[in-house]
Amino acid sequence: MNVYADNAATTRVSRTALRAMLPYFDEMYGNPSSLHSVGQRAAEALYEAREKIAACIGAEPREIYFTSGGTESDNQAIMSAVEAGRRKNKRHIISTAIEHHAVMNTLKKLERQGFEVTLLDVPENGIITPEAVAEAIRPDTALVTVMYANNEIGTIQPIAEIGAICRERGVIFHSDAVQAAGHIEINVVRDNVDMLSISSHKFHGPKGVGALYVRRSVPLTRLIEGGEQERNRRPGTENVPGIMGMAAALYEACENMNVVAPKIMAMRDRLIEGLSKIPHSILNGDAKRRLPGNVNFCFEGVEGESIVLLLDEYGIQASSGSACASGSLDPSHVLIAIGRPHEIAHGSLRLTLSEENTQEEVDYILEKVLQVVEHLRNMSPVWRDLVEGKREYVIQ
Amino acid sequence: MNVYADNAATTRVSRTALRAMLPYFDEMYGNPSSLHSVGQRAAEALYEAREKIAACIGAEPREIYFTSGGTESDNQAIMSAVEAGRRKNKRHIISTAIEHHAVMNTLKKLERQGFEVTLLDVPENGIITPEAVAEAIRPDTALVTVMYANNEIGTIQPIAEIGAICRERGVIFHSDAVQAAGHIEINVVRDNVDMLSISSHKFHGPKGVGALYVRRSVPLTRLIEGGEQERNRRPGTENVPGIMGMAAALYEACENMNVVAPKIMAMRDRLIEGLSKIPHSILNGDAKRRLPGNVNFCFEGVEGESIVLLLDEYGIQASSGSACASGSLDPSHVLIAIGRPHEIAHGSLRLTLSEENTQEEVDYILEKVLQVVEHLRNMSPVWRDLVEGKREYVIQ
Repeated sequence: MNVYADNAATTRVSRTALRAMLPYFDEMYGNPSSLHSVGQRAAEALYEAREKIAACIGAEPREIYFTSGGTESDNQAIMSAVEAGRRKNKRHIISTAIEHHAVMNTLKKLERQGFEVTLLDVPENGIITPEAVAEAIRPDTALVTVMYANNEIGTIQPIAEIGAICRERGVIFHSDAVQAAGHIEINVVRDNVDMLSISSHKFHGPKGVGALYVRRSVPLTRLIEGGEQERNRRPGTENVPGIMGMAAALYEACENMNVVAPKIMAMRDRLIEGLSKIPHSILNGDAKRRLPGNVNFCFEGVEGESIVLLLDEYGIQASSGSACASGSLDPSHVLIAIGRPHEIAHGSLRLTLSEENTQEEVDYILEKVLQVVEHLRNMSPVWRDLVEGKREYVIQ
Repeated sequence: MNVYADNAATTRVSRTALRAMLPYFDEMYGNPSSLHSVGQRAAEALYEAREKIAACIGAEPREIYFTSGGTESDNQAIMSAVEAGRRKNKRHIISTAIEHHAVMNTLKKLERQGFEVTLLDVPENGIITPEAVAEAIRPDTALVTVMYANNEIGTIQPIAEIGAICRERGVIFHSDAVQAAGHIEINVVRDNVDMLSISSHKFHGPKGVGALYVRRSVPLTRLIEGGEQERNRRPGTENVPGIMGMAAALYEACENMNVVAPKIMAMRDRLIEGLSKIPHSILNGDAKRRLPGNVNFCFEGVEGESIVLLLDEYGIQASSGSACASGSLDPSHVLIAIGRPHEIAHGSLRLTLSEENTQEEVDYILEKVLQVVEHLRNMSPVWRDLVEGKREYVIQ
């Protein structure tokens, strides 16, 4: 059996998305900036895509900017807010300890440039409180950036409540919604979000394309220089097929969400229930306020990477932490932030489901994870020490 | 008849490129950073693409970085060189007056940040001399950036000679080869280029993807922050299908260049010969040292935009200046730089051919351009003044 359960890393491009893209490679391949009819057809396509994406998140078409992906969107949003802040001598930024590296490393760069960054502590359930944000806001706060949902443990933040606080206090609020868009309902008006990043390949759209929502009252500055595309805010010939694919995928995901999400959640909960039975295992992140498809566990005495590699031999694709950091030997900063000690933060397994998964696959995953964890523990000197009482269990 | 003659703006994705992309949307859709087999297949694909692109320009695979397009490549190259220069207190940059806006506007930003930019004057033929570069180099020169071939008038710069001078003087040399790659032979070793930008959609690859060649001895700094992709130099999940399409397209273009380029050049020269017969018309850029497919003329007494719109009604897609600046009312900075007065710089027509064009189409273009220019002149008060001797011809 072949089971892809790494949908937080990337997803298969849906038939709808692919169909939406294909004509723009070799029939309507014009440059949207060209005056002639071939170019203008591409420009019309871009407008349609902007309308669709806007409709999915409660925005207006002119508030949508196309980028090369979530990372670029995050960078541009943060650098823009900081630029606006700098002009008012505001040099303080609030974020959380569990952001994606696209946010985290941009904030580190800004710290080196003299900005002050408050990273809010995250409780064990992985969900920050709106009160914590309210308390951290200062007169010189230029930006609050809090991810909509976490890429590793799937926890969903109280974005609307944080948005209300930021709005009241006049602070720009950005949310990295890369993992949330297309999976849970987003409404930028209800949520009082000023800027929101999305990435096409996380919801069955193509890789290499993303979008940034920017409320019309919020200034957006360029991250790179060039032509006057995207209302002079993001230069470079627009990736028309990619944008069409992204719009079609997001629209489909949002249209089907009410039907698809409960189905995925049922599979998720079955996985969580089954994996919880493994002795000395623990679910990471809140059991309920998490993305429909996200399952993340720590297993005492085993390495996450080893689980992933053995599962792959059984045809199951999963991950340990996020794909973006998979080259790194450091334990997940997210698991450390929610209080998992180093020795077990290395032993995490992330399974992320999509509507393409089946109940049968879930049962197969359960069977194989149990088998693999047992196998690895049998070979593990750490596990032997635990069993023999020479070490204490971290997970009871 | 439908004739697309705007291949410098963008090109149709070739069958080869599309075929190379398709499997990576819905079969091998893994994230190259994932440890499992689905991810690793995508990682292998990326390596293959890197090898192919490197082979096309005489580079090594590890010297190729994937970006979202030519604009990002230009930005990253320039900002990197400037960063390296800043550390050695070098704050002078040399470029030309006819660069693309991706270079030009990055240099303007740097000027605002206190860098000094020397923009070399360009003679009427559109080709700068290596001597001009040599004379402009100072002990504090951090970077020379000269485009390989111009996007409007198609002129090819003496890159190898400039490269030799930069190498000798120890100055980093970047070339924006967006219009050149896949159209004329490039060899980064022969040319002594340190950094070179390419854009997929200019040689029948997909939009939204590009590459940056960086010589292994030259430091490359990140433009945006995030994950550790591209050897920690360019974060964000790689656009695997786009990259595969780009590599296939470039490889095909380079393999066929010896056969295709002479065919395109013959059509170009036939167009140039025919359009030269229009009274008071002038070819922009050198007649011989220009891209195989580039034709650019000024016609006295008519607006370029009007020519483009009327040609479009006859099914011919062309442009006036570059697509990237088509929203702008300013005359082309390139035509101004080569000495065309404002009144005729507005009257330019760019026709850019590819291997998809035919001799028959060329004849059709000739017929229609003659017809359209005559028609527009008949309606033009400026032309009437010229004919009646109330104004002097700029173009004899």
